[in-house]
Amino acid sequence: MLDSLSVSKFLDETASNSPAPGGGSVSALAASLGTALTSMVCRLTMGKNSNVTIQIELESVLIRSEKLRAQCTALIDEDTNAFKKVIAAYRLPKNTTEQQAQRAAAIQTAYKEATMVPLQLLELCAEAIVLLKTVGEKGNKNALTDAGVAVLMLGAASDGAAMNVRINLANITDLSFVEANKILINSLQVNVSNSAQQTLFRINERLFSY
Amino acid sequence: MLDSLSVSKFLDETASNSPAPGGGSVSALAASLGTALTSMVCRLTMGKNSNVTIQIELESVLIRSEKLRAQCTALIDEDTNAFKKVIAAYRLPKNTTEQQAQRAAAIQTAYKEATMVPLQLLELCAEAIVLLKTVGEKGNKNALTDAGVAVLMLGAASDGAAMNVRINLANITDLSFVEANKILINSLQVNVSNSAQQTLFRINERLFSY
Repeated sequence: MLDSLSVSKFLDETASNSPAPGGGSVSALAASLGTALTSMVCRLTMGKNSNVTIQIELESVLIRSEKLRAQCTALIDEDTNAFKKVIAAYRLPKNTTEQQAQRAAAIQTAYKEATMVPLQLLELCAEAIVLLKTVGEKGNKNALTDAGVAVLMLGAASDGAAMNVRINLANITDLSFVEANKILINSLQVNVSNSAQQTLFRINERLFSY
Repeated sequence: MLDSLSVSKFLDETASNSPAPGGGSVSALAASLGTALTSMVCRLTMGKNSNVTIQIELESVLIRSEKLRAQCTALIDEDTNAFKKVIAAYRLPKNTTEQQAQRAAAIQTAYKEATMVPLQLLELCAEAIVLLKTVGEKGNKNALTDAGVAVLMLGAASDGAAMNVRINLANITDLSFVEANKILINSLQVNVSNSAQQTLFRINERLFSY
């Protein structure tokens, strides 16, 4: 499990000449960091705010952000595992016509599976960024920069995930699968990006305008 | 040392109701991840590219990116420590006029020190993003999405650091210090953002246009 490595060792493994963990796992970690900061701002607000409605609202956000954090963290490993399956498919024997066909089919299956991991990450980022709208609006002002960094982490994770979906789709021959997923990720990525910009704007307004 | 925690524990600590580690340390970790991916793409290119000029160029980029990675990783702890010093200054006694003056001075000193950490991170991001221009142009095409995620991590780290500098500056009364640093971070942040956009554009062009 990559998340049981120390931060220092995870960085060393990333920097090494092995392609995994790479950008996919790092994007999943960035989303995990974004949801972790979201949870922190909820907790720092719940302890300090006497408004019961806000307390209840942020408690509900916290439960959802902790669930999303667990899901994002699981994808750190899943991305690396899916990548390894693609490599394994490429290494299948290709001596006979039958082997070549089997290998080609295995490569396609592996790429489809590898597409699903960053696609799922993108969907999780889209859910998580919605929570930050509430946190950015109602969170403890002393922790608002943390909410801002959470937005930045989820924005970067979403763009990284979208890039990884696209590069996998470029290797997939099933055009209906490719087109359906292209439309889906474009829509998700734009949604996350718009929400991120709006929430950052509101956070900066609360931090610096009054 | 925060980087000796497991990834999982680091995330738990971030999500907890203690304000540190928070957005500053997470920004430093994002920059560390960006430089780690930069190093990985250098290593994956050096092993695969027969062009001696590119080999030598990327070896030089690798040395610089590994140095930057160590510096960014050190800031994960430094940000949390600087934040703790601000809290400690606020907790100084304020019963007498003398104590009040000493406390106010200590708070100012602590905020100035706390400003220096994200400012240094922003400077490191500005150096690191330049390296990615070369990596994005000459890196192994199979690892280009990793270079893309590196750009995204450094962009988010830079914006996070700039936000943290600004919130510290908002508490500092030495206006010449505030103005000089505002000008500096605006310029650094715009530089990083422009370089990031250009490099991402070039990476997408190499990945998807031919």
